[in-house]
Amino acid sequence: MNILHYPSSILEDAVNEFAKLPGVGRKTALRLVLHLLRQDKEDVENFGNVLIRLKNEILYCKMCHNISDSEVCLICGDETRDSQTICVVENIKDVMSVENTQQYKGLYHVLGGIISPMDGIGPGDLEIESLISRVKSEPVKEIILALSPTMEGDTTNYYIYRKLSECNVVISTLARGVSIGNELEYADEITLGRSILNRTPFAQ
Amino acid sequence: MNILHYPSSILEDAVNEFAKLPGVGRKTALRLVLHLLRQDKEDVENFGNVLIRLKNEILYCKMCHNISDSEVCLICGDETRDSQTICVVENIKDVMSVENTQQYKGLYHVLGGIISPMDGIGPGDLEIESLISRVKSEPVKEIILALSPTMEGDTTNYYIYRKLSECNVVISTLARGVSIGNELEYADEITLGRSILNRTPFAQ
Repeated sequence: MNILHYPSSILEDAVNEFAKLPGVGRKTALRLVLHLLRQDKEDVENFGNVLIRLKNEILYCKMCHNISDSEVCLICGDETRDSQTICVVENIKDVMSVENTQQYKGLYHVLGGIISPMDGIGPGDLEIESLISRVKSEPVKEIILALSPTMEGDTTNYYIYRKLSECNVVISTLARGVSIGNELEYADEITLGRSILNRTPFAQ
Repeated sequence: MNILHYPSSILEDAVNEFAKLPGVGRKTALRLVLHLLRQDKEDVENFGNVLIRLKNEILYCKMCHNISDSEVCLICGDETRDSQTICVVENIKDVMSVENTQQYKGLYHVLGGIISPMDGIGPGDLEIESLISRVKSEPVKEIILALSPTMEGDTTNYYIYRKLSECNVVISTLARGVSIGNELEYADEITLGRSILNRTPFAQ
């Protein structure tokens, strides 16, 4: 058992705060705090101020519920984007991942999670109703369900699909198949099986 | 190449601050910031305030240079401790490690690093002169050199040993040998060789 006696209460406070972060233990937290102690006072104060501003200044786009600096985010406000297509994602990291591909020019809808009974997250905890009303009130032609290919993701996909069945909208999901650049022998059999069933015409 | 577009400048600022920490990449930093966004506003503000206080409130003990809440740290100020023995360590983490063993009741001296020409750290950057003057001005009988058993640690040990050669003080270092509880086959040959050379009388 480790009985760590901290020589200073402010040091201990700082270690406690870092140790609350996911994946950060007390030893790592101490290492991070000692690192900060070696930095300039201004830099550390700046870090502290950013954290204080974080929760106060952050906004969520009233259209897509993505994190934003303004009421309507840059993507929803961009008139050059295709407003007839909405890509449904779990969280803001997935928006960034899809944006990163530079292959998508439509809008997004951030659910804020996926249906996961194990974690006590039901459809009511997610931005599903607001998605339905967006589809009903806006000239949306296609919904792309871009959730993780897990059981929870599939459940959420199916729930949204059922909810949207009365709307006149095309519903698609991400293509599933072998990863580009991976050796075939490392692909799992379910993925490989599906990618044979859903084989596509050969094109250069 | 990853071109990550952050949807909010305050989010980006926070990610930048976390990504400056050692061992924290931009993806981890984003994960930590999104975690904080899910926490209560008060908790996140508290984290920020602790960081701002950190550099302002922390003091270094004027005797041993350990981190402290006051001018003289709790260990140096504790009159029940043996003030004739000083354990020389690299940093505050090592003080905590030795304290944790509950085997040592003397005082400490924190060097603030070890001599490492590769990192541009010379004897002048460390609290070596203040150690010498402590030994000369206080009734010190023994100096325990408890630095890491690396080349840099050995160099620093030797430098301090030379500096203290004129003082009437016993200089000792940590015992080196096989770790307790480890299988012998995993001990490296240098450690094993030394532990045979420096074998100790068998005692229960």
